[in-house]
Amino acid sequence: MRDTPYLAVDLAILERNLERAAADASAHGLALRPHAKTHKIPQIARMQLALGAGGLTLATVSEAEVFADAGIEDIFIAYPVWPSAARAARIRRLSERAALRLGVDSIESALALGAALPRDTVEVLVEVDSGHHRSGVQPALAGSVAAAAQSAGLRVLGVFTFPGHSYAPGAGARAAADEAAAILAATESLEKERIDATVRSGGSTPSRTATDGSTLTEVRPGVYVFNDAQQVELGSCGFEDVALTAVATIVSRNGRDVIADAGSKVLGADRAAWATGFGRLLDVPGARITALSEHHATIRMPDDVSLPDLGSAVRIVPNHVCATMNLADDVAVLRDGEIVDSWAIAARGANT
Amino acid sequence: MRDTPYLAVDLAILERNLERAAADASAHGLALRPHAKTHKIPQIARMQLALGAGGLTLATVSEAEVFADAGIEDIFIAYPVWPSAARAARIRRLSERAALRLGVDSIESALALGAALPRDTVEVLVEVDSGHHRSGVQPALAGSVAAAAQSAGLRVLGVFTFPGHSYAPGAGARAAADEAAAILAATESLEKERIDATVRSGGSTPSRTATDGSTLTEVRPGVYVFNDAQQVELGSCGFEDVALTAVATIVSRNGRDVIADAGSKVLGADRAAWATGFGRLLDVPGARITALSEHHATIRMPDDVSLPDLGSAVRIVPNHVCATMNLADDVAVLRDGEIVDSWAIAARGANT
Repeated sequence: MRDTPYLAVDLAILERNLERAAADASAHGLALRPHAKTHKIPQIARMQLALGAGGLTLATVSEAEVFADAGIEDIFIAYPVWPSAARAARIRRLSERAALRLGVDSIESALALGAALPRDTVEVLVEVDSGHHRSGVQPALAGSVAAAAQSAGLRVLGVFTFPGHSYAPGAGARAAADEAAAILAATESLEKERIDATVRSGGSTPSRTATDGSTLTEVRPGVYVFNDAQQVELGSCGFEDVALTAVATIVSRNGRDVIADAGSKVLGADRAAWATGFGRLLDVPGARITALSEHHATIRMPDDVSLPDLGSAVRIVPNHVCATMNLADDVAVLRDGEIVDSWAIAARGANT
Repeated sequence: MRDTPYLAVDLAILERNLERAAADASAHGLALRPHAKTHKIPQIARMQLALGAGGLTLATVSEAEVFADAGIEDIFIAYPVWPSAARAARIRRLSERAALRLGVDSIESALALGAALPRDTVEVLVEVDSGHHRSGVQPALAGSVAAAAQSAGLRVLGVFTFPGHSYAPGAGARAAADEAAAILAATESLEKERIDATVRSGGSTPSRTATDGSTLTEVRPGVYVFNDAQQVELGSCGFEDVALTAVATIVSRNGRDVIADAGSKVLGADRAAWATGFGRLLDVPGARITALSEHHATIRMPDDVSLPDLGSAVRIVPNHVCATMNLADDVAVLRDGEIVDSWAIAARGANT
């Protein structure tokens, strides 16, 4: 037995999640370029590629370095990467090992990238804001960024967005509609500059079933491989689709509250305003994690369930599995409830 | 130059924070046993011991293993450690290298510990709840837990509590009063069982200046070494006392919002209900981090400050520095603004 707390992935559920997403993308005529920031594990990336993914999405140059080390040869860093001198040198070295696409979202960053990198080192996609209001230019300005990139010697492949405002109850369909409208407007903005948006990339896990396959060419969901409590509470999956849990031990009890030894240093502290707590129990849907310290999860057990014994194990579904994976060095791999392997979370902490 | 995002510690401020806490504890006649879960760095632990700390506090057996590897010989694991077979074997091995104290907070865990460990492997302190309502027995029941521990062959040293309800605006003094009352009641409860509470341990960073030196014998603050945005907003320190920042690059701009490349995977997602955002800028007190994604901090700049250029660096003060330290592999060490060293965060991820 491993000492708790540890992360465990159910291989059968993982495989089903991967297969379902591949089939969905294919049925909609969309290329699937999964965001591997969620799992950070080369073994899972290879399963995704074997099921038809043409390449990976990543968030940072250092994540891309880890997956290039693992033999992945087609990588999109979906982020407005700023080319400091040191980072530009790393991008050049990386481009010798993998086909590389980067995001740009301003004329300044397009010019800086073009100046820092030799011609044909990377291809770029212009990031547009489809309503999440984070990075990304307004769609009507995408053409000016694309033109600047082209003038700076960069090959412009197209446009991308992240409809992150899908992360609210009932928001998936509206976010998908916003995404399609933004991608369409950005494509038209590029056309005015006589630049084709060959790649039109979007996608998030909560909005994926509503993605407009007539406007987009590619989707980049991440969380779907494992799912998490946020996805359950948003209704984008059921508990039976959750492939990743933190296994914890009950160490203390106080009335209907029990304390498990997995806190924010294991689960992550993410809690959206609409979340019902700091995670869920896979086997007790009525339980709620009402407080989270670094090494304590306070779990309020429902009245109709007998309290777990001190020393017994519980399986916690984290709120946001991307954050959870970034906290652990490895994950136990389960087949039929038995640990059959351990996978290193190779890109944990790869944030630069 | 290091690529952003990275963590940086200002050595002069760190040293001043360590010296001040050592002097404060000494002035109150209290032993200082710093909680090293905050920094997780042996170099800082040795500085704390050199300034008079008699030993360290830690949260997990695996943290204790890391610090024992670094030569620390006196460790209190201030947690109701559950002795699974594998963990009990690790505790036995650890006890051969360091004097070891553990927390217990139930008759069941006292009996389990006593059964799992040979006599004199560890000493125990009974954890009591002083108002934070996490782990810990009610003070009046501390004697029964102590008696069970003693009957199971464990040496009972005393009692401890964590007044974590100090983490709210204006709550420090009241939490310190609750702490003193709980420790006093627990001590009396032990006395009824004819057990002396030789060690009476408490302390948190927000409540430390109000700690009752007539009731407690020891304090275990952690965050004071670095401080963080929570401590600034609670009023327990100023920005000039913040020793740890995340250095990030501005990668995108949108009106008065700028996006920095340090998100929740670098800062942690901790945000108390009373916090004004997801962290603060050390050099722009009027700025607020209004949203945090995994790799994006959305910073609303005040109207009277010029916007930082794309590609420029900002210094972010995390909300909760313990979570931040658990996300990085190392920290740059600054003297007079220059990087002079790098320290490994040796106990990062040591959660079992």
